[in-house]
Amino acid sequence: MNRKLRMGMVGGGRDAFIGAVHRMAALMDGRIELVCGAFSRTRQKSRESGRDLFLASDRVYGTYREMLRKEARLPDGQRMDFVSIVTPNNMHYPVAMAALDAGFHVVCDKPMTTSMDEAVNLARKVKRSGLLFCLTHNYTGYPMVREARALVAHGRIGAVRRVVVEYPQGWLATRLEASGQKQAAWRTDPKRAGDTCCMGDIGSHCANLAEYIAGQRISAVCAALHTFVKGRLLDDDASALLRFDGGATGVLWASQIAVGEENGLNIRVYGEEGSLAWRQEEPNTLHALWPDRPAERRRTAMPGPGKEAAAATRLPAGHPEGYVEAFANIYDAFAGDLAKRLEDKPAHEAADYPSVQDGLRGMAFLDAVLTSARQKEKWVELKTE
Amino acid sequence: MNRKLRMGMVGGGRDAFIGAVHRMAALMDGRIELVCGAFSRTRQKSRESGRDLFLASDRVYGTYREMLRKEARLPDGQRMDFVSIVTPNNMHYPVAMAALDAGFHVVCDKPMTTSMDEAVNLARKVKRSGLLFCLTHNYTGYPMVREARALVAHGRIGAVRRVVVEYPQGWLATRLEASGQKQAAWRTDPKRAGDTCCMGDIGSHCANLAEYIAGQRISAVCAALHTFVKGRLLDDDASALLRFDGGATGVLWASQIAVGEENGLNIRVYGEEGSLAWRQEEPNTLHALWPDRPAERRRTAMPGPGKEAAAATRLPAGHPEGYVEAFANIYDAFAGDLAKRLEDKPAHEAADYPSVQDGLRGMAFLDAVLTSARQKEKWVELKTE
Amino acid sequence: MNRKLRMGMVGGGRDAFIGAVHRMAALMDGRIELVCGAFSRTRQKSRESGRDLFLASDRVYGTYREMLRKEARLPDGQRMDFVSIVTPNNMHYPVAMAALDAGFHVVCDKPMTTSMDEAVNLARKVKRSGLLFCLTHNYTGYPMVREARALVAHGRIGAVRRVVVEYPQGWLATRLEASGQKQAAWRTDPKRAGDTCCMGDIGSHCANLAEYIAGQRISAVCAALHTFVKGRLLDDDASALLRFDGGATGVLWASQIAVGEENGLNIRVYGEEGSLAWRQEEPNTLHALWPDRPAERRRTAMPGPGKEAAAATRLPAGHPEGYVEAFANIYDAFAGDLAKRLEDKPAHEAADYPSVQDGLRGMAFLDAVLTSARQKEKWVELKTE
Amino acid sequence: MNRKLRMGMVGGGRDAFIGAVHRMAALMDGRIELVCGAFSRTRQKSRESGRDLFLASDRVYGTYREMLRKEARLPDGQRMDFVSIVTPNNMHYPVAMAALDAGFHVVCDKPMTTSMDEAVNLARKVKRSGLLFCLTHNYTGYPMVREARALVAHGRIGAVRRVVVEYPQGWLATRLEASGQKQAAWRTDPKRAGDTCCMGDIGSHCANLAEYIAGQRISAVCAALHTFVKGRLLDDDASALLRFDGGATGVLWASQIAVGEENGLNIRVYGEEGSLAWRQEEPNTLHALWPDRPAERRRTAMPGPGKEAAAATRLPAGHPEGYVEAFANIYDAFAGDLAKRLEDKPAHEAADYPSVQDGLRGMAFLDAVLTSARQKEKWVELKTE
Repeated sequence: MNRKLRMGMVGGGRDAFIGAVHRMAALMDGRIELVCGAFSRTRQKSRESGRDLFLASDRVYGTYREMLRKEARLPDGQRMDFVSIVTPNNMHYPVAMAALDAGFHVVCDKPMTTSMDEAVNLARKVKRSGLLFCLTHNYTGYPMVREARALVAHGRIGAVRRVVVEYPQGWLATRLEASGQKQAAWRTDPKRAGDTCCMGDIGSHCANLAEYIAGQRISAVCAALHTFVKGRLLDDDASALLRFDGGATGVLWASQIAVGEENGLNIRVYGEEGSLAWRQEEPNTLHALWPDRPAERRRTAMPGPGKEAAAATRLPAGHPEGYVEAFANIYDAFAGDLAKRLEDKPAHEAADYPSVQDGLRGMAFLDAVLTSARQKEKWVELKTE
Repeated sequence: MNRKLRMGMVGGGRDAFIGAVHRMAALMDGRIELVCGAFSRTRQKSRESGRDLFLASDRVYGTYREMLRKEARLPDGQRMDFVSIVTPNNMHYPVAMAALDAGFHVVCDKPMTTSMDEAVNLARKVKRSGLLFCLTHNYTGYPMVREARALVAHGRIGAVRRVVVEYPQGWLATRLEASGQKQAAWRTDPKRAGDTCCMGDIGSHCANLAEYIAGQRISAVCAALHTFVKGRLLDDDASALLRFDGGATGVLWASQIAVGEENGLNIRVYGEEGSLAWRQEEPNTLHALWPDRPAERRRTAMPGPGKEAAAATRLPAGHPEGYVEAFANIYDAFAGDLAKRLEDKPAHEAADYPSVQDGLRGMAFLDAVLTSARQKEKWVELKTE
Repeated sequence: MNRKLRMGMVGGGRDAFIGAVHRMAALMDGRIELVCGAFSRTRQKSRESGRDLFLASDRVYGTYREMLRKEARLPDGQRMDFVSIVTPNNMHYPVAMAALDAGFHVVCDKPMTTSMDEAVNLARKVKRSGLLFCLTHNYTGYPMVREARALVAHGRIGAVRRVVVEYPQGWLATRLEASGQKQAAWRTDPKRAGDTCCMGDIGSHCANLAEYIAGQRISAVCAALHTFVKGRLLDDDASALLRFDGGATGVLWASQIAVGEENGLNIRVYGEEGSLAWRQEEPNTLHALWPDRPAERRRTAMPGPGKEAAAATRLPAGHPEGYVEAFANIYDAFAGDLAKRLEDKPAHEAADYPSVQDGLRGMAFLDAVLTSARQKEKWVELKTE
Repeated sequence: MNRKLRMGMVGGGRDAFIGAVHRMAALMDGRIELVCGAFSRTRQKSRESGRDLFLASDRVYGTYREMLRKEARLPDGQRMDFVSIVTPNNMHYPVAMAALDAGFHVVCDKPMTTSMDEAVNLARKVKRSGLLFCLTHNYTGYPMVREARALVAHGRIGAVRRVVVEYPQGWLATRLEASGQKQAAWRTDPKRAGDTCCMGDIGSHCANLAEYIAGQRISAVCAALHTFVKGRLLDDDASALLRFDGGATGVLWASQIAVGEENGLNIRVYGEEGSLAWRQEEPNTLHALWPDRPAERRRTAMPGPGKEAAAATRLPAGHPEGYVEAFANIYDAFAGDLAKRLEDKPAHEAADYPSVQDGLRGMAFLDAVLTSARQKEKWVELKTE
């Protein structure tokens, strides 16, 4: 297709964090352009954001509904191709539903919705619409996460026996939300975040990453949620024992009160014939441990990693790729699919970006965690759609 | 006291691992000498071990009972001062009880006994005897573990909120015990190891280390034990959610099927005002994380660590001290106490070596874990003596 | 300025590495757009590259001369604002001179030229033209390099005494150029690379980084160049003792035959009151060592680093930023200056991107190294312009 | 031989560092006992040290001459077997010569002497005497140093091309010797240390380690010595370019003013087919890098390392061994040789402890460095005996 893909954005105004990331990720590969947006809840702020982004003023909208309506009426050569939803959690569902209704493909931040019911509805809607839906579980975009998944899938570490996945952060160790910090405010607000803060915001990445790499599905959880900061309404510390459908055991924990921790997502996967360890803060390295030979340090663009990692790698060895590049890999996979769709070519069979089904899995996990945390019995099984 | 302290040893013959460690640890500081031993279950093997160790042949015994009986009759200037028990778990209790009965002070490997009942009896016996008892939870001998404990105790990281302690090993990922390897054979044998392999052998170190550093006691556990290797009778993989009596939450896991892992004991302690992280495989470093300034790398013999760490450090900065030196710190603290006792001086108020009470705590932890692992409810509270 | 800046590119066709980096770096912040290019030495290849990049076919040129001539004639609202030169070394000089003659601002890859004479001429031309010139010594774009420079400049580590800067790579350990690999071919070809391969290609980054951080200038070198791979005409291994004009001593080495090394640029700067260590492959961390307190791990977006680092940081703590982001910081600083120039506002006094003077310093360093390597006396002083 | 070997010590009184290390190293394996000593320059201090060490008072001497004379007269079953010399550098030579004259085997700390002439004399004396001589270049006692040497010797990394060896320390960044600190006082005093402080004290370890691992000999040096701390008479910062007799190039530097560095000896060896990296502060790991597969982390007691490393390893994997254990490996190798000698058995052909020839190499290296540092020409060749 001999043109860039056209993206519209909902959310992501001046104070936002994740909106800026989506834009860098979408733009850096030169395949997508930002053509319009409804960036804020006030028209004025949305306009200011649009100006920062050099958008034409008639493509900056006051509400997502206005955007969907007006964009739908634009001619083929101008109309946006897809909507990127980068709002707080509670808006993911209504915007996504409306965008699909208006005939637009969707990229949506995670967690997909704030309830299991919404998730089920959205999954049905996506299916019926025939439109593309991409959930930005961005950590699966890292080359060495792809490598880890491939090593497991190709049997290189044998049957997976144990998974340990962690996500320590320290930024909510005090009541930051009381200071007016926006990121903290919405995440700790049940109305905007849903029924969980810590497990929903970061524990959901753990669950997604564990299933993505281990190739087994979490079948049951035994969870404990805790709120350490006084006055906070949602969990800021979360732990769970895990059972996987392939026989693995696991531990998952996430915490936002782990003082001094940054964004410490990490995973270890132990198989019968080898083990893998990956840390998001040093993402270009995958440690592989073996029973009969020295531990390996697998690195992007060096000998060792396979084609899955190579496809997600932009630079020669030793040129660090980071968070934005991983995020861009999700966008790039989606863009590839979308380009084919717009050309009426068959989509890539297994384009590697998280789907609405992954979002549904995530909601089932959170649902089970919340149930488990409230009950006296140990184990709660995950609902399967 | 102007002589070396005289040690006798039970266990620790030619094939043993931990006996050799005890000897190096006892000898390296030049304060203790090995004078006698009952090293093996056969008299012949015991003699061979004695010869390797340059012992006089009349001080090498065929059984621990013979050793206790004959040593007790020797004159003051020759008789051993204390017994070091380095046998498989099931012999800790009978040997310790007999040694105390014979009037000898005791150093004993961990876990202290194979049941809670034995532990209670032994604790009573120690109390009644007035003799010294040292349990070699050796990891508390590392300078940076002492530093971590001191930082918590002095309020430097505020109230502890969360503890994560892990102990991955990979050496039992296959059925090594079937090969005749002695270390594997007794640890996986319920008759010699007790009711747990993984949690007892290494999980017990986790619990001890967590309480030692965090300064809170584990009050309840929710545990899952698993046996991955077919034909094995005891657990080789263990996980637990923890509650502490000071309000902290925690996760503890240990595994012996974590392929490629060596002896990966590590702990992270998160407080309201700071966090600590320590890994046994890089023991001279303690990472301290702060909410308002850069993370620190605290190192033995460098500026930063306090007097507790300094007292456990032999060498200038950058000269790595290891496992044997940490073990020797336990022996050295015990030797200091014993020397005072032999001179009828008051013992050091807080000699830093694990006591019979620590052994009792360890057995209460294992007891609760075993109960929890068998039941459907989540939490089991630890029995307190 | 309410529009994106318009970039034209010379070089950077389909097989190129650094051209793609320049494009990602220029595009990711949404402030620059690529409008035209002369991407290859053949018109056909240039066209293919232009199509890959979704450029209008009339803005894709067969030669840089054609591009400069035709772009200069375009109306204000269409004409490119600046040229980005991403060719092999030998073309930097002629393209830059022609671009300045045609009135275009210039971004140029390093090393700036292939001789000292060219460098002097180019510096004069830039000065006379009044146009902006940016040399992409990209490693100075990393936030923690900025932090290191700031710590030194603010006196935080006292007078700098010693600098050790290294750049090991392994990719030229065999005669890769004989295989037709383009990157290897031009770098080892005296006609395209100049008189040095290893020192010119990567040692020049070392010298630039050392001066940038240490705030002292290299005053003399004692160098040894070596060619290990048979049949290769230029150095693939280079070492130098350094003297700095502020009294520091130093060691600089670079090697392309260091098997298994990736892109291991790293620097340690030792001052009277503190020391700094930074590794390009783990770029978001700066280690700071102190005489009287524990070593610090300074991290982007965490407490500690100052405003210089913050200004170069896009993401919250723990979200790794990499090579492209650092490169983009150079482009962003240049874009800021250029936007002001186009609005006739005074330029930022100290926009932080490498200048033509830095390029001149680099050539003086290489000139001294080449002289030293050929002579029997130890030291050669650097020519100052 | 069915008794412990009997060691006498010269130097190593209460304030000493290295004497205590020698004792721990000698004692920990239970094969050597300390029987006598002349620990200090005053009889009173020597006695106090002897008491600390539980020695019989008649075996504690006021001078080394007295010790040699009186020990020589003791009967076979009591007389010491060898002397361990742990004094400041200037006393190594006279004590070693006298000990050999008195018929005692010798263990001597490094550097062996304070001049090339002394070194040559001592080497001749050792040869003529037929007695054993061990120089404690202790870093060669580390298991992973043995592994590195073995990998090179067995051709696993191909021909060695490049060696980089460093030894940064920070403890002499200020004029510590003025405070009366004894370790600093003698090392910076030309009368006791010889003509070099930094290069002699720690640079000599670099040279020894480089030759030990690389299997090539340093053939020429180009050196720069520097004294940063005012009032100091000897070098505290030293750098050298190296040439090896097997064609390798190298860089060696050592510094005692590298603020915040501890005891940072480290080495990288680059061969045609692989590379090795080892850091003394993390001694149980050897990094091996390969051109065609992922980098390896070779670890003591894990699969990978060969029999040379295994022979120097006491503990299972993941149980850190440190500086004392490496030092003890030197003593243990010497003890093995000595025991055979005392039993009139043929000595082990290649007992792995540094010899008087290694000491001679070290002095030739220091001699060349001092010459180079004073002259204007680049290169000085090492004298070979």
